[in-house]
Amino acid sequence: MRYRRIPDETIRRLTIYLRGLLLTSEQGRKSISSQKLADYVGVNPWQIRKDFSYFGDFGTRGVGYNIEKLTREIKRILKLDVAQKAALVGMGNLGSAILTHPGFGIYAFDIAAVFDVNPKKIGRKIKNITIEDVSKLWTLKKRKIKLAIMAVPRPVAQETADKLVKAGVKGILNLSPCYISVPKKVKVITIDIAMDLACLPYYMPTS
Amino acid sequence: MRYRRIPDETIRRLTIYLRGLLLTSEQGRKSISSQKLADYVGVNPWQIRKDFSYFGDFGTRGVGYNIEKLTREIKRILKLDVAQKAALVGMGNLGSAILTHPGFGIYAFDIAAVFDVNPKKIGRKIKNITIEDVSKLWTLKKRKIKLAIMAVPRPVAQETADKLVKAGVKGILNLSPCYISVPKKVKVITIDIAMDLACLPYYMPTS
Repeated sequence: MRYRRIPDETIRRLTIYLRGLLLTSEQGRKSISSQKLADYVGVNPWQIRKDFSYFGDFGTRGVGYNIEKLTREIKRILKLDVAQKAALVGMGNLGSAILTHPGFGIYAFDIAAVFDVNPKKIGRKIKNITIEDVSKLWTLKKRKIKLAIMAVPRPVAQETADKLVKAGVKGILNLSPCYISVPKKVKVITIDIAMDLACLPYYMPTS
Repeated sequence: MRYRRIPDETIRRLTIYLRGLLLTSEQGRKSISSQKLADYVGVNPWQIRKDFSYFGDFGTRGVGYNIEKLTREIKRILKLDVAQKAALVGMGNLGSAILTHPGFGIYAFDIAAVFDVNPKKIGRKIKNITIEDVSKLWTLKKRKIKLAIMAVPRPVAQETADKLVKAGVKGILNLSPCYISVPKKVKVITIDIAMDLACLPYYMPTS
């Protein structure tokens, strides 16, 4: 079953709740009230209830949420209940940092292929993964890797995206500081660290 | 003048428009139609007009936007018309990647102070900035640095945020994969790369 017309923001918050639940269960908890979950993830309780209402009723009044069950449900909705393989393109400073970032473990993502254009890097092993030549991106199709993280310089971002789409990639996490254009069936989420920093001064009191 | 009740999403999109305008002006253009700007940044033209309507009328019918003037206006709204100094806390893989990331140059951000907890790193120079002991975070107040980027491990994220707030920091870009709690007057934007990746499978066709 696909859920239609769920706002992107709800999907994004589901990952926030999931992260909170996973961290909470690490602490040995079995259940959590909607207020406690709200405090823990920094989202209003009514927002949490509204987000969950798209998918059915997850809580029991007065008892709260069963952490294990809710975790399983959210993983199923987000299609994180099956192991997801991802490719990483661009092994510069940012790409290398991502490969070694501890954050991916929590969602059971497997960075299964790594690419770069630099002959000095190609063939090297990092974390048991051999860096491959970016000209081999087309092999993603037969390897059934449909997710990719792009950490390439801006001037080659669009052509890299085009190659990924051609190789059957359906979801791209774009870390290049620019907009990339893809067919409608492909989902792109762009993270531009500098741009997010650029939002902050607006909120700061003028002194 | 402060603009009140502008949605966060509008502010975020203003930085997208600004990035697009800055890249466009690098190409030597003087003016741009709202449709061209829309194509270039990947946002609907009506959304662009709606976002600008919060602040007044920026375009001339049939002529489009004067790039230089619009850039200046958006920078003023976002308070990016004055040089913004930022501190970077945590010089692990991700912190180092951020320091050398070319994306910050475009918004004229100045990473003016860098901190770490590791004695082997403290005192070392990267890009002409000496890495300081994290115990010196309190000095940010007298140095008038009110923006900080946090790239520290999750277990120390909250205490680092507390120290930053105590040192007078008003805006935090949090790259630690967790929610951090701060007083209302402080704005936090959290980037969790793994979490954004976790959003993607939902949108992918089940095959």
